[in-house]
Amino acid sequence: MAETGEASTRDEILDDGYELDRKAVAQILYAVDREDRETLVALMEPLHAADIADLLEQINAFDRRRLILLYGQEMDGEILSELDETLREDVIGIMTPQVLAEAVRELDSDDVVDLIEDLDEEQQGAILDVLPESERLAVQQSLTYPEFSAGRLMQREFVMAPEHWSVGEAIDFLRSSENLPEQFYHVILVDPKLRPVANVTLGRIMSSRRDVTLKSIGEESFHTISVLREEGEVAYAFNQYHLISAPVVDENERLVGVITIDDAMAVLDEENEEDILRLAGVDGESRLSDAVIDTVKRRIPWLAVNLVTAVMASLVIAQFEDAIATVVALAVLMPIVASMGGNAGTQSLTVAVRALATKDLTGANLWRVIRREGAVGLINGVTFAVVMGIVGLIWFGSPALGGVIATAMIINLVVAGLAGIVIPVVLDKVGVDPALASGAFVTTVTDVVGFFAFLGLAVVVLL
Amino acid sequence: MAETGEASTRDEILDDGYELDRKAVAQILYAVDREDRETLVALMEPLHAADIADLLEQINAFDRRRLILLYGQEMDGEILSELDETLREDVIGIMTPQVLAEAVRELDSDDVVDLIEDLDEEQQGAILDVLPESERLAVQQSLTYPEFSAGRLMQREFVMAPEHWSVGEAIDFLRSSENLPEQFYHVILVDPKLRPVANVTLGRIMSSRRDVTLKSIGEESFHTISVLREEGEVAYAFNQYHLISAPVVDENERLVGVITIDDAMAVLDEENEEDILRLAGVDGESRLSDAVIDTVKRRIPWLAVNLVTAVMASLVIAQFEDAIATVVALAVLMPIVASMGGNAGTQSLTVAVRALATKDLTGANLWRVIRREGAVGLINGVTFAVVMGIVGLIWFGSPALGGVIATAMIINLVVAGLAGIVIPVVLDKVGVDPALASGAFVTTVTDVVGFFAFLGLAVVVLL
Repeated sequence: MAETGEASTRDEILDDGYELDRKAVAQILYAVDREDRETLVALMEPLHAADIADLLEQINAFDRRRLILLYGQEMDGEILSELDETLREDVIGIMTPQVLAEAVRELDSDDVVDLIEDLDEEQQGAILDVLPESERLAVQQSLTYPEFSAGRLMQREFVMAPEHWSVGEAIDFLRSSENLPEQFYHVILVDPKLRPVANVTLGRIMSSRRDVTLKSIGEESFHTISVLREEGEVAYAFNQYHLISAPVVDENERLVGVITIDDAMAVLDEENEEDILRLAGVDGESRLSDAVIDTVKRRIPWLAVNLVTAVMASLVIAQFEDAIATVVALAVLMPIVASMGGNAGTQSLTVAVRALATKDLTGANLWRVIRREGAVGLINGVTFAVVMGIVGLIWFGSPALGGVIATAMIINLVVAGLAGIVIPVVLDKVGVDPALASGAFVTTVTDVVGFFAFLGLAVVVLL
Repeated sequence: MAETGEASTRDEILDDGYELDRKAVAQILYAVDREDRETLVALMEPLHAADIADLLEQINAFDRRRLILLYGQEMDGEILSELDETLREDVIGIMTPQVLAEAVRELDSDDVVDLIEDLDEEQQGAILDVLPESERLAVQQSLTYPEFSAGRLMQREFVMAPEHWSVGEAIDFLRSSENLPEQFYHVILVDPKLRPVANVTLGRIMSSRRDVTLKSIGEESFHTISVLREEGEVAYAFNQYHLISAPVVDENERLVGVITIDDAMAVLDEENEEDILRLAGVDGESRLSDAVIDTVKRRIPWLAVNLVTAVMASLVIAQFEDAIATVVALAVLMPIVASMGGNAGTQSLTVAVRALATKDLTGANLWRVIRREGAVGLINGVTFAVVMGIVGLIWFGSPALGGVIATAMIINLVVAGLAGIVIPVVLDKVGVDPALASGAFVTTVTDVVGFFAFLGLAVVVLL
């Protein structure tokens, strides 16, 4: 087999850390420049479809187009599958209908669903048209399930057996089957109504005597997944229960498909990616390959929200113009209180959002966590109150000013800690994604409270 | 089998979304209160070890101690494995030596390694002492590999076969083996020097005729992993190449172990968790079960860094005290420019940090991405410059003030976009985790530039 040979060539193209090597990319683009198809194919041959997809994402639109046209019929379905959703429409638009048809025909039903669900109707139709009747029906059936559901994620190729079978019967059946799935790890035992009752790993089957019943060697942790289950929940279950594959059932508990861990892992990674981006105020679908204008569109909403927040904070400051005109030091120090509150609030809310996503924050520990965040805010508040009190005293020579900033710091860090936990929990309860919206609310609170506490106390104490 | 019966009971304890039900937790704690061991065991029986671990993480230290002591010998090794690292030391300290010994003996070598690597020496010794000689040696050998390496992650239980074997020979071998691993999905083909040459899925073996050679049905995507490879890289490879299990090799390319996707999935999830927390200025090891004092310790460093940043920004403001005393409106408006810059910078740096982690940002597209961020900053800057220019004009009736804030906004958003990409890339190049440190640098830049541009322009234009 060529695999070991391939591995060494791949190592040249991917650097030590599975990263596309800059020189290799330059060689590939040079081949594209010269329209040298032979060299291009030779250079790309050792690359995995996922690496080719990464390459297509990293080069610019002009080079991408030329590369796809030159690469021609080598553009296979797996590359399309691996490609980021935001680029698929473009790439499919560039491919010739024959190449596209060829590429799609090799894919499993779940990959075809994943491929076409975000395409426009015309492109969807073009792809469905080239599929064999039975697969087209399977894909169309999957598309009837809601987006992001287990039904969209599952593949319809699986291996099942009656619950009363023995190991020998299962082996004979497998040996004689023509159309086994490319990859499978379990035989799913079903009752006469096609309801899954157990999952048997192939390893257990192979290491058991022929007369052993399949039921007696079923896996201890057996989970079925409803076809309507949200894909994030599916990924959670795989990670929590170390599932490798799990049967998917319809509303009558009948087996309709199977989800494997590699798909669940991809979902988990995507969900985490979305959370990271949303927490930073970036649309979760953002990709490095987005055009400038798309990037602007994905970022402006959060900046607009932040502008409103910032203007609200300014309105608070405006109430204290006279005080600031009298004691300019207030203008110098006030951003410190607000900034510390914003950071403490972000810390607290990120922990809360994450704990909600991993189901570690529940009714059982909510009050304890709120008390903890309050206590942490208080301790941190006192710590930085002491520091800033001293800094304020030394800098401006005013014990009163030091006292004001110290007190405001304590107030704002306690509020930040509490807001950071309460706001995400409330948003989650009312069905708003806490990763998306918590930041705006929490920083509004910490800005307003920060400026108001500091300037308000200053008016009372100093003027 | 009892699985389907169990599932319904589990559904009562875990609510719709795999979350521990508050009422069920209350029942369990009530049984602990009454020291009613029988009810406790009955209530916990349907729960998966991972759910029990979650439960232990969610209750307070006092209840946890009582529950563990009452639960007694039911505390098995799997629960310990699933438990968050930060709690393991406590829990192991509570368990009696007999229960601990029993619990550890059932675990695979990789789980024992994962369990003891963070314990103190005394506890490590206690656990190693109860292991059978051969397993103790395996665990000690694994511990010689660096932390977070493939060597620590791999299990030493695997199935290999000579490369020249046929399907029939493999099946006969598996049937006659006494000590097959609990879970395995591939037979690894090795050459006479024990170097892996291919990976054959059990599904392919079972669906092939006895006389077919194993080599001819090897998996197309075959990856070996060096024992020294960092675990995050391992997780990346599994996700990128859809691996289910991969052989691990030592420096002589000899097979020493195997890593399975469920372990890789857990690593991927942890790495993402750490990135999310670090980006928010929280220590990546933070857990909801941390005590108040630990939480304070994990958060104070970032707040201290932020205080320095905020004071630096204040020093910039202090240079313009006279200007602010003359035009108090400057104090009202200046936080807006800094805040918008901070947010735009965070957006840009989060995308960059994420793209570095997923290897989407490389030498091949760095300059294009920098240009894009600059362009996005310019467009967003002009957009909000227009908005704030008008707001400033209407609010304070001064076209000059409107012009000053508009210009400062453009400058700061362009700087924010560029700093957000350049700073993480530079940190990554010099070997500092960009998720950890980028935020402090970028907000320092946007605060200082924001205040300086706005106040400096104001002095030039208005005074």
